[in-house]
Amino acid sequence: MTSAQPEPTGTPSLPSRLEKDALGTRLMPDNIVYGIQTARAVDNFSISGRTIADIEGFVPAILVIKQAAARANQRAGKLEPRLADAIEAAVMSCLADMRGQDFPVDIYHGGGGTAANMNVNEVVANRASEVLTGKLGPDPVHPNTHVNMSQSTNDVIPSAMKMAIGGELHALRHMLDELVNAISQKQLEFAGAVKLARTCLQDALPTTFSQQFSGYRAAFQRQAEELLVLENACLGLPLSATAVGTGFGTSKQYREFVFEELRALSGKRYHLEANLFDALQNADFWIHVSSGLKAIAVTLSKFAADLRLMSSGPRAGFGEITLPSVQPGSSIMPGKVNPVMPEMIMQVAFRVIGNDATITRAAEGELDLNVWESIILESLSESVRLMRRSIPLFVSGCVAGIEINPARGAADASSSLALSTALAEIFGYSAASAVAKHAETHGMPISEAAVECGLMNARDAGRLFGDVSIYAELEKSESILDALRGSRPAP
Amino acid sequence: MTSAQPEPTGTPSLPSRLEKDALGTRLMPDNIVYGIQTARAVDNFSISGRTIADIEGFVPAILVIKQAAARANQRAGKLEPRLADAIEAAVMSCLADMRGQDFPVDIYHGGGGTAANMNVNEVVANRASEVLTGKLGPDPVHPNTHVNMSQSTNDVIPSAMKMAIGGELHALRHMLDELVNAISQKQLEFAGAVKLARTCLQDALPTTFSQQFSGYRAAFQRQAEELLVLENACLGLPLSATAVGTGFGTSKQYREFVFEELRALSGKRYHLEANLFDALQNADFWIHVSSGLKAIAVTLSKFAADLRLMSSGPRAGFGEITLPSVQPGSSIMPGKVNPVMPEMIMQVAFRVIGNDATITRAAEGELDLNVWESIILESLSESVRLMRRSIPLFVSGCVAGIEINPARGAADASSSLALSTALAEIFGYSAASAVAKHAETHGMPISEAAVECGLMNARDAGRLFGDVSIYAELEKSESILDALRGSRPAP
Amino acid sequence: MTSAQPEPTGTPSLPSRLEKDALGTRLMPDNIVYGIQTARAVDNFSISGRTIADIEGFVPAILVIKQAAARANQRAGKLEPRLADAIEAAVMSCLADMRGQDFPVDIYHGGGGTAANMNVNEVVANRASEVLTGKLGPDPVHPNTHVNMSQSTNDVIPSAMKMAIGGELHALRHMLDELVNAISQKQLEFAGAVKLARTCLQDALPTTFSQQFSGYRAAFQRQAEELLVLENACLGLPLSATAVGTGFGTSKQYREFVFEELRALSGKRYHLEANLFDALQNADFWIHVSSGLKAIAVTLSKFAADLRLMSSGPRAGFGEITLPSVQPGSSIMPGKVNPVMPEMIMQVAFRVIGNDATITRAAEGELDLNVWESIILESLSESVRLMRRSIPLFVSGCVAGIEINPARGAADASSSLALSTALAEIFGYSAASAVAKHAETHGMPISEAAVECGLMNARDAGRLFGDVSIYAELEKSESILDALRGSRPAP
Amino acid sequence: MTSAQPEPTGTPSLPSRLEKDALGTRLMPDNIVYGIQTARAVDNFSISGRTIADIEGFVPAILVIKQAAARANQRAGKLEPRLADAIEAAVMSCLADMRGQDFPVDIYHGGGGTAANMNVNEVVANRASEVLTGKLGPDPVHPNTHVNMSQSTNDVIPSAMKMAIGGELHALRHMLDELVNAISQKQLEFAGAVKLARTCLQDALPTTFSQQFSGYRAAFQRQAEELLVLENACLGLPLSATAVGTGFGTSKQYREFVFEELRALSGKRYHLEANLFDALQNADFWIHVSSGLKAIAVTLSKFAADLRLMSSGPRAGFGEITLPSVQPGSSIMPGKVNPVMPEMIMQVAFRVIGNDATITRAAEGELDLNVWESIILESLSESVRLMRRSIPLFVSGCVAGIEINPARGAADASSSLALSTALAEIFGYSAASAVAKHAETHGMPISEAAVECGLMNARDAGRLFGDVSIYAELEKSESILDALRGSRPAP
Repeated sequence: MTSAQPEPTGTPSLPSRLEKDALGTRLMPDNIVYGIQTARAVDNFSISGRTIADIEGFVPAILVIKQAAARANQRAGKLEPRLADAIEAAVMSCLADMRGQDFPVDIYHGGGGTAANMNVNEVVANRASEVLTGKLGPDPVHPNTHVNMSQSTNDVIPSAMKMAIGGELHALRHMLDELVNAISQKQLEFAGAVKLARTCLQDALPTTFSQQFSGYRAAFQRQAEELLVLENACLGLPLSATAVGTGFGTSKQYREFVFEELRALSGKRYHLEANLFDALQNADFWIHVSSGLKAIAVTLSKFAADLRLMSSGPRAGFGEITLPSVQPGSSIMPGKVNPVMPEMIMQVAFRVIGNDATITRAAEGELDLNVWESIILESLSESVRLMRRSIPLFVSGCVAGIEINPARGAADASSSLALSTALAEIFGYSAASAVAKHAETHGMPISEAAVECGLMNARDAGRLFGDVSIYAELEKSESILDALRGSRPAP
Repeated sequence: MTSAQPEPTGTPSLPSRLEKDALGTRLMPDNIVYGIQTARAVDNFSISGRTIADIEGFVPAILVIKQAAARANQRAGKLEPRLADAIEAAVMSCLADMRGQDFPVDIYHGGGGTAANMNVNEVVANRASEVLTGKLGPDPVHPNTHVNMSQSTNDVIPSAMKMAIGGELHALRHMLDELVNAISQKQLEFAGAVKLARTCLQDALPTTFSQQFSGYRAAFQRQAEELLVLENACLGLPLSATAVGTGFGTSKQYREFVFEELRALSGKRYHLEANLFDALQNADFWIHVSSGLKAIAVTLSKFAADLRLMSSGPRAGFGEITLPSVQPGSSIMPGKVNPVMPEMIMQVAFRVIGNDATITRAAEGELDLNVWESIILESLSESVRLMRRSIPLFVSGCVAGIEINPARGAADASSSLALSTALAEIFGYSAASAVAKHAETHGMPISEAAVECGLMNARDAGRLFGDVSIYAELEKSESILDALRGSRPAP
Repeated sequence: MTSAQPEPTGTPSLPSRLEKDALGTRLMPDNIVYGIQTARAVDNFSISGRTIADIEGFVPAILVIKQAAARANQRAGKLEPRLADAIEAAVMSCLADMRGQDFPVDIYHGGGGTAANMNVNEVVANRASEVLTGKLGPDPVHPNTHVNMSQSTNDVIPSAMKMAIGGELHALRHMLDELVNAISQKQLEFAGAVKLARTCLQDALPTTFSQQFSGYRAAFQRQAEELLVLENACLGLPLSATAVGTGFGTSKQYREFVFEELRALSGKRYHLEANLFDALQNADFWIHVSSGLKAIAVTLSKFAADLRLMSSGPRAGFGEITLPSVQPGSSIMPGKVNPVMPEMIMQVAFRVIGNDATITRAAEGELDLNVWESIILESLSESVRLMRRSIPLFVSGCVAGIEINPARGAADASSSLALSTALAEIFGYSAASAVAKHAETHGMPISEAAVECGLMNARDAGRLFGDVSIYAELEKSESILDALRGSRPAP
Repeated sequence: MTSAQPEPTGTPSLPSRLEKDALGTRLMPDNIVYGIQTARAVDNFSISGRTIADIEGFVPAILVIKQAAARANQRAGKLEPRLADAIEAAVMSCLADMRGQDFPVDIYHGGGGTAANMNVNEVVANRASEVLTGKLGPDPVHPNTHVNMSQSTNDVIPSAMKMAIGGELHALRHMLDELVNAISQKQLEFAGAVKLARTCLQDALPTTFSQQFSGYRAAFQRQAEELLVLENACLGLPLSATAVGTGFGTSKQYREFVFEELRALSGKRYHLEANLFDALQNADFWIHVSSGLKAIAVTLSKFAADLRLMSSGPRAGFGEITLPSVQPGSSIMPGKVNPVMPEMIMQVAFRVIGNDATITRAAEGELDLNVWESIILESLSESVRLMRRSIPLFVSGCVAGIEINPARGAADASSSLALSTALAEIFGYSAASAVAKHAETHGMPISEAAVECGLMNARDAGRLFGDVSIYAELEKSESILDALRGSRPAP
C-alpha cells in the first residue's frame, strides 16, 4: 500500500501492511508490531483489563521457548541459520524491552492459549523479518512456519506456565523466608515471658509467647520447604509434545536439543515430563500448586486472626500484645486503631481460597487437552502476587513491631483454672476437678482453692502456684524436641 | 418354582420368581419386593451406605407421583381402572409401612435417577400385581408400561426432589422460628444492660446486649422469610415433561389431571413449571436453594463464633456472657468447660459450605438433562438435616441458657477510648482525638483525660461520661426504626 | 512553605501543606488532593494494583452520600450552610471529573473500609476548603468533623457498596436481556428443525433446535427477573447506623433528611434497613447476590459447553451446529477453528465460582461489624464486570451467528433407538424393548426392526417412523404450556 | 442401687452404677460400658447419624494410643503395673470386638475431640476396672487419671486422626493400583488402533487409543505415588504435646517410651512431629491431604467424563468406544443404556470437591489449637471411603469391559482437516492453510484437496494420507520418552 492510495478507513494514513490469516485479511498499521491473529483476539476477548503481559514471567517464558526452539531447529537442520539468528535477535530485543502493548491478548481468551502463543509468534516474526528486511511482516520469517516450528500451542503454553509459575513460587519462597526471620526475631525477643494458652477460646495451661511464636515460625518454615518441592516440580515440561502429545512434527534430535538450549538459556534444570499424553490431558498438577498456596494463605490468615485476637481491646479484650499503629482506625471514633495489616492479609487469604475454587473447576478439562489454562494461570498468578506483595508490608508494618504485655500474660496465666492440671498430676483428676470447681464458684485462684479444699497448706500452694514463670522452663522442650528429631526414623 | 426343583444357586430354596429386563434375567426371591433393575443397581452402586430411602420425603414423593399419575391416566382413559386401583393400593401400602430395605439403591447411582425411579416402579408394580393375583411380578401390572405410564425418570425425579426438599425447607423454617423465639427471649431479658461494641475486634462505642441480640434475631427472622420464598418455589414441577421436555407420551388431558390429583393428594399447590426444556436442562434452581441454606449456615456460624468470643475466658478473655455447661471440657485440665454447642453448630456450617461447592459443580449438566440430581439431592438434604437437628439442641443446650455479666459489660463500656466520640460531637474530631491519645498514653479514662486536656471541668465530664447506662437509651432507637420502616417506600 | 526554605526530603520543592492525624504529621504536596490518612493507606496497602477507584460506581456512591449528608446536616441545623455548600460543590466537582489518582487506596485495605471513607472525606474536605479559601487543607472544612458529620465508615461503606452493586446488577440485567433477545431470534429462526435430544450423552427422543433454544432463553429470562429482585434489595441501606448500629451522633431528623436527599439526588428509592444491628453484623446478603451471579455464570457455562458439544467436529463430532469462525484455532494445525467465545465465557464462569468461595468466607465476620467488605466488593464487582463485558462479545461473536445443520439433526433423530418409545406407547415397554435390542444388534433403524420383529407391517412402520419432522409438531407444546401457565395457582 | 429401692425413672430396674463428673452425676445402666461424659455427649450432639465408630480406624487408633501410653507410663514408673495391665487387657478386648454402640459420640461434637477421647477413656477404664474387680466404674482404673495419663485430647486426637487417615490412604492407594492395572491392560489391548485426538472438542491430529489410555494410566500412577508421600507424612504425630504443646504432665522418658511402644504395637514408623506448637496450632496438613484426594477425584472425573464423551451415541455421538451395559438406561425409552458407572464416579468427585471446601474452612482454627478436627476427619474419611469403594466397582463394571470401535477411530482420523499439519511441515503453514480451507469448503478429504490445490499429485497424496495407521508408529514415542527420562536431570 502506497501513500498515494486513499486510505479507505478514513483514519490518518499510517504506514501499514496487509496481513492475512485463514479467516481473511487485515490492514495493520506499522506502529503495531503484532499481527492479524492478535488483532482478532483483541476484538474478541477484551473483557478483563488484564492481558498476558500482566502475568509475571509468562511472555518472557514463551519468548525463551521460541529462542530455544529456533536454536534447536537450526541444530537439527530444519531451520536456516539466517532465520534462526533473526528469531533470536527478535526475542532478545523483546526481552530487553518488554512492552505491554505488544502483548494485548486478554487473559480470558478461549482456545487453550492459541491467541497467546500466536501473539508471541507474530511479534517475534515481525521483529525478525524487520531485522532481515527492515520491514515488519510474515516474510521472510513466518509466525507459524518458522517461529512456531516444531511447536504447538499445546506444548508451548503449558511449558511457559510452569516456567512462569516456578519463578513466582521462588520469589514467594523468599518472602516466606523474610516472614520466618521476622517471627524468629520475635521468638527470641519474647523468650521467658509466660502467657496463657487458650483452647476452644477458653483459658488453658500457661505457655510462653516464645513457644507460641515458635509454632508460627515452624509453620511458615515448613511451607517454604513445601514450596521448594512445587518449584522443582515446575521443571518438568511437555515441550515437544506438540498438538496432542504424539510429538508430531518434531524429531528425537529436536527434543534433545530444545531442552539443552532451554537449560542453557535459563540456567534451570528443565526436563521432559514422563508421559506427554498425561501432561496434556490433565491439569491436576495445578491443584497441587494451588493447594500449596492455599495452605500458606490459610496459615497466614490464622496467624493474622490470632494477632487480632491477642491485640483485641486495647482495654476490653485480650490485650496481651500490641500491634504497631499504622493507620487511624475510625472516621467517627477518635483514638481507635485497627489491626489493619492482619486484616489486609486475611482478605488476601480469602482471595486465594476463591482462586483455588476456580482452579479446581478449571482443572477438569476433557479429552486430549485441558484448555482452561488461561484462567488457571491468571488465578495462580494472582494468588502468588498478592501474597508476595502483602507479606513484606505485613512484616514491616506489623510483625516486626509486635510488642507483648508480659504483665498481662503473667496475670492471665496465674488466674487460669487449668492450673489445677498440676493438682491432677499429684492428687488425681477427680480431686483436682473439685478444687477447680471450688475456685470457680468462689472466684478465687487455684492456689487458694487448693488450700481451702485441704489438699495442701499455703506454703506448698505458694511453691506450686506462686510464680507462673516456672512455666517458661518448658521453653527448653523445643530444643529437646529438636534433639529427638535428630534420631527419629527417616520418613 | 417348587421346593422339589433343585436350586441352581445353592442358596436355600426360597420361593422365587424369574425377572427379566433388557439386559437379561435374574431369579428374585419372593421376600424381596423390588425387581431386577433394582437388584442390578444394588450390585453396581453400593458405595456410600446411604440409599434413596435415607433422603427424607424422597421415596414418598415418588410414590405420590405414581398414585397421581395412575389416577390421571385412568381419567384420561389410558389405564384400566382395575390396574389403576391396584397401583393406588400398592402405593398406599408402601406409604403406610415405609421399609428401607425395599428401596436399597445407593444415592450415588448414575443415570440421572433411573435406578431410583425404577426401584419405585418395581416395588409398586410387584405390590400391585400381588393385590390382583397374590403374586409378585410384572404381570398384570408392569413397572414401565403401567406404573411409569406417561412418565419418565426425567420428569418424575426432579419433581420428587422439589417435593421432598420443599418439605424439608418447611421443617427447617420452623426450627429457625424456634431459634428466633429463643433469641427474642434473651433480647427481652437483657434489656437495659450496656456493653461495649467492638469493630475490628477493637473497643468501639457502647451498645446494649439487647441491641446486639436484636441483630441476631432479625437476621434469622429474615432468613426464615427467605426460606419461605424458596419453599414456594419448590411448588413448580416439570411433571409431564417426560424424557426430554417435549411431553412425548402424554396428553394435554393427562397434564391437567396429574396436577389436579397431585394437589388433591398432597394438599399443596403444585403447578407446572413455565418452560419444560429449561426445567430439564438447568439445575441452577438448586444453587439458589443451597445458597439460601449457606446464608443461614454462615449466619449461624457467625452467631456461634460470637458466643465463643463473648464467653471467652472465663478469666482471661472477654467474659461478658456465660454459656451453659453441658460437657466437661478437657481430659487433662480439670474445671475447663468449652463452648461445645457453638462448636457443633460451626462444624455444621462448614459442612453446609462444602455441600454448596458440591452442588455448584453438579449444577453444571449438559444438553437436555442435568443428570447429577442424586448428588444434589444428597447434599442439599444433608445440609437441611444437619441444621434441622442441630438447631433445637443449640437452642436448648446453649441459647436458652445464656447469661450476661452486666458488671463486665458496664466496665468495658466505661473504659473505652471511643467514648471520645461524644467529645468529637461537641469539640470536633481533632480535639477529641487529642483527648483519646492522652487517655491512652496515660492509661486513664476519657472523662479524666477530657478534664486534663482542659476541654471541660470535672462536673461536666461526670455528667457526660459518669454513667454509661445512658447508652441504654438508644435501645429505643430500634422501635424508632420500626416506626420509620412503616413509612419507607415499598420495595 | 516557600521555595526559599530548604526542602528536607530532597525532592524538588513543590507547594505543600503539613497534614496531621492521630498518629503524626506529613507534608503533602499540593498537587495531591487527598490527605495524610490516604497517604498512609497507600504506603500500607498497595498490593493488588486495584484501587477503590477501579470499582465501578463505588467512589461516586460515597460522594453522593457525602452530599446527601451535608444537606441533611444543614437542614438539621448541625452544619453551617457555608460549609455544606462548599462540600456540595466539592462533591460535584469530583463527580464531574473522576480522577483515579485521587482515590488510590488499594481495595485490599484492612479496617473495614475506614481508609476508603477517609480517602473520600479528605478529598472532599480539601476541595471544599479550596472552594472557600483557595487552599487545600482541613480548615475550614475538616474531613471528619464536617464531611463525615453524622456518619461512620460502618454505615457509609456498606451503603455505598449496595448503591454501587445495585447499579452494576442493573447493567448486567440489560446484558442478559440482550442475550435473551439473541437466543429468541435463534429460536424463531430454527423453528421446525428436528434434532436428537441426548440425556446422559446418549441418544434419546427427538426434539427441535427451537425447543432446545427456548430452554436456554427461558433460563436467562428467569435469571434476569431474579436479578431485579436482588437489585431492589440493594435499595435498603444502613445509613445513619453510624459506628455500631445505635445511630450515635445522629438525630431522628437527620435520618429522615439524609434518605430524602439521597432519593432526590439519585432518583432511586433508597430506604432504611429494618434492623441496623443486623445490617452491620451480618453480610449474608452478599451471599445471596453472589449466588445469583453464580447461578447465571453456571447457566452461561452450561450453555457455552452445550455449544461446544453441538459444534464438536466439524467432522468427527456431533456437528449439528456451526459457530462463527472468529479466530484461527491452532498454531500448528491449519484449518482448525475453536469455539473460543464459549471458552471465554466458561472461564468467566469459573472465576465467578471462585469469587463466590471468597465471598462465602468473607461473609463470616465477627461481633458488631463485618469488616471484610472490601474483598466482598472487589469479588462481586469483578463477577459482574466480567459477565457484563463478555456477554455482548459472546452474543455478537457467537450466539448471533449460530447456524444449524438440519440434515444432521434429522438424520440423528431418525437413527435413534429411542424412537422405540413410540412402540412402547402402543405395544408396551417389553415388546418395544425387544425391538430396540433387535435394532441395536443388527445395526438397523427402529422402523425396520419393528417390521422384522413382527409388530407391524412396513407401511405402518413407514407412517410411524418415516418422517421425524412430525416431532416438530411438539414445538407447539410450549405455547400450550404458556396457556396452562396462565391458569396456574399464583405462587 | 438395690432392686428394693423404687426406680425413680419408671424404667425396669437394670443393674446400674452412679457416675460422676465435674458437672454432676448420672445413673448408668450396666449394659452400657461408656460413662457419664459420653452419655452427656450423646444428649448434646446426636445430629448426624454418624458416630466416631463410623470413621474407619479412628477408635482403634485411639485405643492403641491408650495401650502404648499405659505401657510407657508403666515403664516411666508413673503407672502401677497392675493398672497398666488391666488397661492393656481392656484395649485388647475392645479391639477384638469393636462394638459401634460403645462409641456413640456423634462426629459433629464440639470441644476439639474431648468427647471422643473421653468416650474411649471411659470405655477402657470401665473395662479395665471390670478386669480387676468384676465391676464397671472409675475405680480402681479412672478414665482421666489412669487411662488418659500423660495425655490430652489435644495430642491424642490429632495423632489418632493421622493414624486413621494414614491407613485409609494406604488402602486407597491399592485401589488406584487396581485402576492402573486395568487401564494398562486396555493400553496393551488397544495397541495399534488409530483414533482422532480432539482439542477444544475440535478434530485435531490422529493419535491412538493406546496412547490416550497411557495418559490415563500415567496420571493415576503419578497420583498413587503422591498418595504414598502423604501416607508417610501421616507418621509424624504430636503425641506427648499434651494440652497446649508444652508437654506439661509428661516426661522426656515417657515421650521416648510412648513412641517406642506405638511403633512396636503398630509396626509403623511413627515419630514425633518437629514443632509441637505448630502441630497443635495449625491444620494446614489436612489441606494437603484433601488436595491430594481432590486431585485424584478431579482426574477420575475427567477420565469418566471422557468415557462418556467417547461412548456418546451410540449412533448420534462420538461412538468410538463402547462401555459395558450394566443397567437399563431409561424408564420410558426402551433400549437406552447410560454410562452409569462413570456417572457414579463423577458424583463421587463432586462430593470430594465439596469436602475440600469444608476442610479448607475448618483448617482455619485459632490460637493454640485447631478445634475443628472432627469435621475435618469426617470429610476426609468420606472422601477416601467413597473413592475406595467406587473405584473397584468402576474397574469391574466399566473400565475392564471397555471396547473400542477401530473402524470409527480410523475413519475419524482420516477425515480430519488437521491432517494438513503434515502439509505445513513440507509446504509451510500458509499453503497448508489454503488446502485445509479448500477441503472444508468443498467437504473433501485433505488428500483430495492437496491435489486439487496443486501441491502434489494423487500418488504422493495417497502415500501421505492414504493410511492413517502410520500414526500408530508414534506409539513408540512413549518408550522413546521413557528412554529419555532415564537421562533427565534428577529433580
